[in-house]
Amino acid sequence: MALIVQKFGGSSVGDAQKIKHVANRVIETQRAGNQVVVVVSAMGDTTDELIDLAQSVAENPYNSPREMDMLLTSGERISMALLALAINAAGASSRSFTGSQAGIMTSAKHGDARISEVTPTRIREALDDGDIAIVAGFQGFNKDSKDVTTLGRGGSDTTAVALAAALNADLCEIYSDVDGVYTCDPRVVSSAKKLDSIDVESMLELAAAGAKILHIRAVEYARRHGVDLRVRSTFSTDPGTIVYSNLKDGAQMEEPVVSGVATDKSQAQITVIGIPDVPGKAAEIFTAVAKAGANIDMIVQNTPTGSDVTDRVSDISFTLPKADLQRVANALEAAKESLGYRELELDDSIGKLSVVGAGMRTHSGVSATLFGALAKAGINIEMISTSEIRISVVTSLAQLDEAARAVHTAFELDSDVEAVVYAGTGR
Amino acid sequence: MALIVQKFGGSSVGDAQKIKHVANRVIETQRAGNQVVVVVSAMGDTTDELIDLAQSVAENPYNSPREMDMLLTSGERISMALLALAINAAGASSRSFTGSQAGIMTSAKHGDARISEVTPTRIREALDDGDIAIVAGFQGFNKDSKDVTTLGRGGSDTTAVALAAALNADLCEIYSDVDGVYTCDPRVVSSAKKLDSIDVESMLELAAAGAKILHIRAVEYARRHGVDLRVRSTFSTDPGTIVYSNLKDGAQMEEPVVSGVATDKSQAQITVIGIPDVPGKAAEIFTAVAKAGANIDMIVQNTPTGSDVTDRVSDISFTLPKADLQRVANALEAAKESLGYRELELDDSIGKLSVVGAGMRTHSGVSATLFGALAKAGINIEMISTSEIRISVVTSLAQLDEAARAVHTAFELDSDVEAVVYAGTGR
Repeated sequence: MALIVQKFGGSSVGDAQKIKHVANRVIETQRAGNQVVVVVSAMGDTTDELIDLAQSVAENPYNSPREMDMLLTSGERISMALLALAINAAGASSRSFTGSQAGIMTSAKHGDARISEVTPTRIREALDDGDIAIVAGFQGFNKDSKDVTTLGRGGSDTTAVALAAALNADLCEIYSDVDGVYTCDPRVVSSAKKLDSIDVESMLELAAAGAKILHIRAVEYARRHGVDLRVRSTFSTDPGTIVYSNLKDGAQMEEPVVSGVATDKSQAQITVIGIPDVPGKAAEIFTAVAKAGANIDMIVQNTPTGSDVTDRVSDISFTLPKADLQRVANALEAAKESLGYRELELDDSIGKLSVVGAGMRTHSGVSATLFGALAKAGINIEMISTSEIRISVVTSLAQLDEAARAVHTAFELDSDVEAVVYAGTGR
Repeated sequence: MALIVQKFGGSSVGDAQKIKHVANRVIETQRAGNQVVVVVSAMGDTTDELIDLAQSVAENPYNSPREMDMLLTSGERISMALLALAINAAGASSRSFTGSQAGIMTSAKHGDARISEVTPTRIREALDDGDIAIVAGFQGFNKDSKDVTTLGRGGSDTTAVALAAALNADLCEIYSDVDGVYTCDPRVVSSAKKLDSIDVESMLELAAAGAKILHIRAVEYARRHGVDLRVRSTFSTDPGTIVYSNLKDGAQMEEPVVSGVATDKSQAQITVIGIPDVPGKAAEIFTAVAKAGANIDMIVQNTPTGSDVTDRVSDISFTLPKADLQRVANALEAAKESLGYRELELDDSIGKLSVVGAGMRTHSGVSATLFGALAKAGINIEMISTSEIRISVVTSLAQLDEAARAVHTAFELDSDVEAVVYAGTGR
């Protein structure tokens, strides 16, 4: 008997009809001879409605993060109880559990807590009794204060993976309205192909590079704890995409050179021009940026130029989320004198394209193919960064989609059939 | 420094504006130098909306009572978090607690659990920190199973009284849209007067006799634990009505002969005609009624009549909630042969009028005044029952309001001004 964790996102439980559909799907999984743990998000727009309510009673509700978590966790409480009611009404037996009842312990940071420990005693008991266990995603509790916490974006995916790890589950299925992991976002490249499988490291790079299908925290958790994931659609029987963390007994998986192409339109770029070429200047700049609370992605520094040694200056470019652009620029402007640079250049119309594949480790020529395809399509590259299994380039935002199509074709990822367009997943 | 528990019902926190109003009221109480614990119900129609949702996913959601409790408790979770947000935004400091966090332990019966123990450790801590503690009404948890429970009708009032008892509070204020306890329902008797005070036993009889202002369980809890209540309106500064459980140091309260008149239109009557006059028949009948799950209120048995001893028969009439009428009648019909009665008479258009007053203990003539007033108004009495401080009569439903007005006048309860009409309170 296998133990399967199934996670259903907000759009999968968006109304009564969908909840009944999910109930049947869960019951089928149990009747096929499995123990089933279900993780659910809040129904459809519930979270937004609760945030609206909070803003109607308090100007800055996030000033009371403990209370915001108390409020928002009611969303999953509703969806999990409804799913349990639907499952019980359909003739199976289920019990629902809050994050706290499920033993999801977290750090203290309200709104963005990290899972520190999972002790799913009550889940085990429910499974041993033959029940389906339903668990609220996105939430846990702080062991010290006993306060309710939420996990931030991607939290429900992370709950599912953490439970799968703690229960030593055979599989963790992430259901949404997308039927798997594609070689590229089908909205950008209509010839994108669904992958039958992908290794967890490539998935991690894809998620980091902007693919929205799985949240990076959940993938990282799966990689670290060796949990196999299956990404599939709530509304089809397609087997979806397996994300392997474990290579089964000797069955060496053939790693494709390139698994997929990811695009990211959420980034902006700052170039700091004319930085005196003295040791420690880069560190000073990035300390100022970190203090402004921004997550930096790519960094490029050019070779210093200048007539003589005392005179030499260099430029540093880096990318960061668009939402952080102005704040970081202000922080750098404020420190202009002490940092000693000449000027700032801001660009909020950049795009990032990444090519990801575990096979890059052993295959050469990937960058040649990439740069060749971009050159042939007449696309200018502004920045480049690489990891062991990823190459990312920054282009202009206007050219990003065209670049993705050119690169997708160059790596022979194109499918014969047009892909179903998918939307992003919620929490 | 006094410790005050304040309970706000669903209509008091029905929307953002009202929540902000309540927040200010609570803050004022704290700034006047008190420690404040606030108990809230779910916002306005939230509970009904959640029940609708449950019925849209399961035909008989109450077949999963544990899950219904999980679902319904999200209502208070939302209102208490919003109130905490509003209080914090208005410049005071508050923390919200679920029933379980507040230490409200209950029996196991989902949907109608009884409070068994209250250990408000975290509430004490919050108060000691100078915070306002906000507690979800209507809910607790089963100590053995750790499952969430709800307290049934009147649950939030009971939560407030139980917390006041456990915290040894100086006062428990029950806020609603009614500004106190009246000598009669102002919708029935427009000259009804608000009482400044009433003893808890009379309040208990009034609640039992159909007055909706306070739930009988909460009043009973207050009586048993010696908690003084103040019933007042969220939307006025009227001091409301004090319900005394404690007579302060020697200050003997002058007990009015009659405190108020209550009417109840929710009852029906069954008369079992022609019951053989042999020992144990009444017991058999009420065993059958109890098995059908009905709560019986008044019972009257007439003197047996008949030509000789073996032939004598009697009739038994009793009142019960209208909702139980058909079920109990069916049960009695099914047992007709073994019970041996001749026929059943059902009447669902009766009304019950009760006159309540602690002074009845020491004053005679109350029943004479009551029956005289009813006779003068031409109202027929079908049943009579009495307690130490209450006389109840059953009349026809059509004559009930007229009866109430006649009796209210006869006991000189009429006010010179017309009362504000009030509605019933929720949970």
